[in-house]
Amino acid sequence: MLNLANIESAARDVLGQSSYDYYASGAADELTLRWNVERLQELRLRPRVLRDVSTLDTSVELLGRRHALPLLLAPTANHRLAHPLAEIATARGASLSGVGMVLSNGSNTAIREVAVALGSAQALWFQLYVQPDRALTRDIIWHAEAGGAEALVITVDSPVDGSRNRQARSGWRLPEGTGHPNYLGRKQRRSVVNLEEVRPLKCTWEDLEWMKGTTRLPMLLKGILNPDDAELALRHGADGVIVSNHGGRVLDTVPAAIDALPAVVERVAGRAPVIFDSGIRRGSDVLKALACGARAALVGRPYLYGLAVGGAEGVEHVIRILRQELRLAMALTGCRAVGDLDRSFLW
Amino acid sequence: MLNLANIESAARDVLGQSSYDYYASGAADELTLRWNVERLQELRLRPRVLRDVSTLDTSVELLGRRHALPLLLAPTANHRLAHPLAEIATARGASLSGVGMVLSNGSNTAIREVAVALGSAQALWFQLYVQPDRALTRDIIWHAEAGGAEALVITVDSPVDGSRNRQARSGWRLPEGTGHPNYLGRKQRRSVVNLEEVRPLKCTWEDLEWMKGTTRLPMLLKGILNPDDAELALRHGADGVIVSNHGGRVLDTVPAAIDALPAVVERVAGRAPVIFDSGIRRGSDVLKALACGARAALVGRPYLYGLAVGGAEGVEHVIRILRQELRLAMALTGCRAVGDLDRSFLW
Amino acid sequence: MLNLANIESAARDVLGQSSYDYYASGAADELTLRWNVERLQELRLRPRVLRDVSTLDTSVELLGRRHALPLLLAPTANHRLAHPLAEIATARGASLSGVGMVLSNGSNTAIREVAVALGSAQALWFQLYVQPDRALTRDIIWHAEAGGAEALVITVDSPVDGSRNRQARSGWRLPEGTGHPNYLGRKQRRSVVNLEEVRPLKCTWEDLEWMKGTTRLPMLLKGILNPDDAELALRHGADGVIVSNHGGRVLDTVPAAIDALPAVVERVAGRAPVIFDSGIRRGSDVLKALACGARAALVGRPYLYGLAVGGAEGVEHVIRILRQELRLAMALTGCRAVGDLDRSFLW
Amino acid sequence: MLNLANIESAARDVLGQSSYDYYASGAADELTLRWNVERLQELRLRPRVLRDVSTLDTSVELLGRRHALPLLLAPTANHRLAHPLAEIATARGASLSGVGMVLSNGSNTAIREVAVALGSAQALWFQLYVQPDRALTRDIIWHAEAGGAEALVITVDSPVDGSRNRQARSGWRLPEGTGHPNYLGRKQRRSVVNLEEVRPLKCTWEDLEWMKGTTRLPMLLKGILNPDDAELALRHGADGVIVSNHGGRVLDTVPAAIDALPAVVERVAGRAPVIFDSGIRRGSDVLKALACGARAALVGRPYLYGLAVGGAEGVEHVIRILRQELRLAMALTGCRAVGDLDRSFLW
Repeated sequence: MLNLANIESAARDVLGQSSYDYYASGAADELTLRWNVERLQELRLRPRVLRDVSTLDTSVELLGRRHALPLLLAPTANHRLAHPLAEIATARGASLSGVGMVLSNGSNTAIREVAVALGSAQALWFQLYVQPDRALTRDIIWHAEAGGAEALVITVDSPVDGSRNRQARSGWRLPEGTGHPNYLGRKQRRSVVNLEEVRPLKCTWEDLEWMKGTTRLPMLLKGILNPDDAELALRHGADGVIVSNHGGRVLDTVPAAIDALPAVVERVAGRAPVIFDSGIRRGSDVLKALACGARAALVGRPYLYGLAVGGAEGVEHVIRILRQELRLAMALTGCRAVGDLDRSFLW
Repeated sequence: MLNLANIESAARDVLGQSSYDYYASGAADELTLRWNVERLQELRLRPRVLRDVSTLDTSVELLGRRHALPLLLAPTANHRLAHPLAEIATARGASLSGVGMVLSNGSNTAIREVAVALGSAQALWFQLYVQPDRALTRDIIWHAEAGGAEALVITVDSPVDGSRNRQARSGWRLPEGTGHPNYLGRKQRRSVVNLEEVRPLKCTWEDLEWMKGTTRLPMLLKGILNPDDAELALRHGADGVIVSNHGGRVLDTVPAAIDALPAVVERVAGRAPVIFDSGIRRGSDVLKALACGARAALVGRPYLYGLAVGGAEGVEHVIRILRQELRLAMALTGCRAVGDLDRSFLW
Repeated sequence: MLNLANIESAARDVLGQSSYDYYASGAADELTLRWNVERLQELRLRPRVLRDVSTLDTSVELLGRRHALPLLLAPTANHRLAHPLAEIATARGASLSGVGMVLSNGSNTAIREVAVALGSAQALWFQLYVQPDRALTRDIIWHAEAGGAEALVITVDSPVDGSRNRQARSGWRLPEGTGHPNYLGRKQRRSVVNLEEVRPLKCTWEDLEWMKGTTRLPMLLKGILNPDDAELALRHGADGVIVSNHGGRVLDTVPAAIDALPAVVERVAGRAPVIFDSGIRRGSDVLKALACGARAALVGRPYLYGLAVGGAEGVEHVIRILRQELRLAMALTGCRAVGDLDRSFLW
Repeated sequence: MLNLANIESAARDVLGQSSYDYYASGAADELTLRWNVERLQELRLRPRVLRDVSTLDTSVELLGRRHALPLLLAPTANHRLAHPLAEIATARGASLSGVGMVLSNGSNTAIREVAVALGSAQALWFQLYVQPDRALTRDIIWHAEAGGAEALVITVDSPVDGSRNRQARSGWRLPEGTGHPNYLGRKQRRSVVNLEEVRPLKCTWEDLEWMKGTTRLPMLLKGILNPDDAELALRHGADGVIVSNHGGRVLDTVPAAIDALPAVVERVAGRAPVIFDSGIRRGSDVLKALACGARAALVGRPYLYGLAVGGAEGVEHVIRILRQELRLAMALTGCRAVGDLDRSFLW
């Protein structure tokens, strides 16, 4: 298990094809899914030699907290598919690894329990969707606040569910009895997507402003690729922007997230942190995203594979590999601190 | 049957190799056939978030009629190969789907019967070739008018038949008893293409002008890639232009149709509708073609595969998938109405 | 046998691996061999419609003779490997096809016999190398003149033999008793190329000038890629230039011949005909080479495969396919006469 | 055994998978490893014809010595894996081939014995790492001087070991009893790289200056890709720069070495020789590197494969192939002397 590809292979066996496909698949022809990884690989690093890299500082400040690594666990749903302890195991893995965790609204564990398992040394953020049911949204936000969330991550790229043909073909269904306690026993209004009908939710900047008014927690918007949307996000009160194409799961043939990052960074121009998501498979990818202007990166599928293979220790193993690879890339590009990263570290 | 690729696979089994090759093959090395699809895939969509996309308007106005979708069934010959009810089944499928149909002169069903099956809610256009036998051409046009055609689609890209090596290798022949009633019992003069001789038909802009004089129906020219030809088309009275390379079936190594579209749109400059044909395999491809300036798109092979697999319902299934995918792409690019599409929806 | 690829496959079986490899292989990693074909494929044709293409003129004037097709058989050695009648069969095939033939100095048949088989209706050119043995060179030239050659093709790209790893690996050797009568029973001085030594022949522009002085025949230089060499060729009296990389057989990773053609055409600027060689596999490739400024094209390996499969008729079949495909490409790009071809026929 | 690829195949069988992987593997996903070769292949040669290439001068002057070829054996560790005589066999091969040798600090043979086997006709350089243990470094340098080294090659690209996943997966370990006598029985301080920790050595330009003060031998810095580092190298007293990415073994997704060469050459601007390393697999690659401004090239893995297959004669065979291919490429690009090479020899 030397790299994340090894761990994914092992996880495929553990998970079975159907759950593996649920995690692994992307929208339609999975072109964006592939581009996410390839375009990061194609970015060339610019090495430096004979700099003193005997100490390496990988820490970043994010929303008032110092993180030992420029990495958080991305929000992903239904960890029970990967491990019986579900998000509890994930949170323990995050805790062991020293990284924060973004808990999905679609998790199988109540935020309070996750907060306990994670401990207070690591950041806990809570992800939810912009959606039109304001009463439920407000209750979820208050519940998340009470449960220990330090920040809200609002996913804005999915007024409709993406069409993941591979997942659908494998006939995946949520196993009986897999609950979503962070919906508070209520049902989120869902968009309708089937062959008869595609009825997107009505979710607009006004909903976001309203959400902003319900809480004092900082709010980050996840799913921004278009710099015009980044601008609007800041104008509507977002405290940060997460450049992401949802791991290629929503709309196929949008650009690789790394191709969208520089223009968003330029538009945001330091007014708020920009976080990168979608495609990280090597520690050097983290360095590349930061060199393109991200403050930190989220990693999603890889830790799910670690979780499937080894529970909390599996999650920790994934983060350890990424940390090792990041530190190697820092040493070999002459980067003493991730805060120094900029385009000059790329070829 | 989640996407058109699934349906094509199923159709291959139903049709048998020889008929499948007749539909599927392209000219020579099939490079243009492949480029048609690849170049559409490579166009990147530009997403928008938090726009109100709860209602989506996919309708377009075309030749004085409002179409529920920016899609029509492309003219293709010999539907009897795919289904015993031939074009009757296709027309019923179009009717169920709410899309118009372009009947091929080489259909196995008389236009009158097709018109009945299609009903008056959908547009019926009739396709024929520019060809030098004026008496026959005139009779066909009048017959089409009388049969219910609302527009004529004149295919101009084939003064000679293309050389489809794959089709020829598979030894395809039209089955005995497959008639072409829309030739009125007469024989169209054909170009001669064999190893001894390549004798193209003499078909010129004068023939087109003459055809124009025989009818009041609007005439669209199909098979334009070169913007200079688009200009000539308008000057000679065409009411619209269909950018197409005949699905890669005529001349190999002409550009992908989508690569030719923008320059034609620019030259036509709004004087007439530009319709796109060749390579649509996803609803997002329709959105891309419209973002490049097309008013609507034709889809060909995919509905033939649907017809083979499920008759009218198969055709409807294909259109339903395309509609679903188009609406998804609209919702996720923040496009409320297809009429709003322009290059800003592409990366 | 619908295209040249089919014929190559069939020839592979007829020839056996070793002789096939002798014909088919290129230098080193065979990258240029592959690029020759790929770069021609990637050139996009620009179609035109509704032009009168009912008559197509494929003829070109070359060195004072009108050729029915812009094609000649390229000089290739040792036709006896492909057919017992060797170059006699080839010449009969050329005669049946109405194309000229460039006889290789390394042919297995005396030029006089080839001239008889070819007849006077087709051009017979004779190919030899620039080499330092002037007495032999002069005798060969006079022998070729007397034997009926109308022009000399001087191959200038091989002061050393290329290193064809595939051919060497297959252990190819010239069969016993395969003679080279056009060397007049003498031995051409050869470059030495083996692992101990690489001793190129000394062949310079002075040798060429001297050759020029021995004959009144027009002289074309074959193997020019560099426009500076094209300029020198004209200054030293060449009557034409053949852009060629020897079918990728001499130096690997030189550019595809089609990539070198435009700059040579520009430098020559109409002062002499430029002929294209290396990579023609479709009639549309001939059109592309002419659109890039060549007056005509040579075709090599394909006719050898035709010769192997069917003797004279096989050669004729190859040319017939190329003619058919060229005429199709002309009709569909609106090209009435190959003399009209220029860059406007390419995308 | 016609080319280096053949020899590599044969060596794979001789070495066994684990030792083969130790030599062959690159860092992480081995992208840079692949790019090193591909980018050299993609550089197009620009041929010339009818130049007098009957004599070819492949010699270059380097550090006051004339080398018959612009090639040296790159420093590589642990030749005993490939051959029982280890570096003795390598040195004999170099001697037979007429090329110099860069002995690795990690060799299994004392420099004195290597010097004897190599003889005085060929250059012997000694490679070591910049590392913080100054006493050991000084002793190694003095030992190398005394042992016959004419120059020191200081590898600067590895303050940490690269992470070679393939090698790690194959479970490679240095066989028992494989000694490193040039460490003088002491242990070099190593960087720590494992999943728990990545602790790079502290090696800076000051260490280099200090090393410079310990010896009168010329010092070349190996592992420079960044032109800014080349500038610093000269300012800190380097007598030459070796552009190298360590054969893709240290940091994946740094550019192919050949892509980094031109900017380094431009920056160095003739103040010191620039030598090329990483990716040479054909003699034409040597020509390309020199055309990009390198004075000479190092070749690494290929001679190890020769050593495995045939000992000293195997090494000689590899160099002989490279020489033959270099001379062929010179003859066919009209290059009489490698000293004449510049960008005009590339397309």
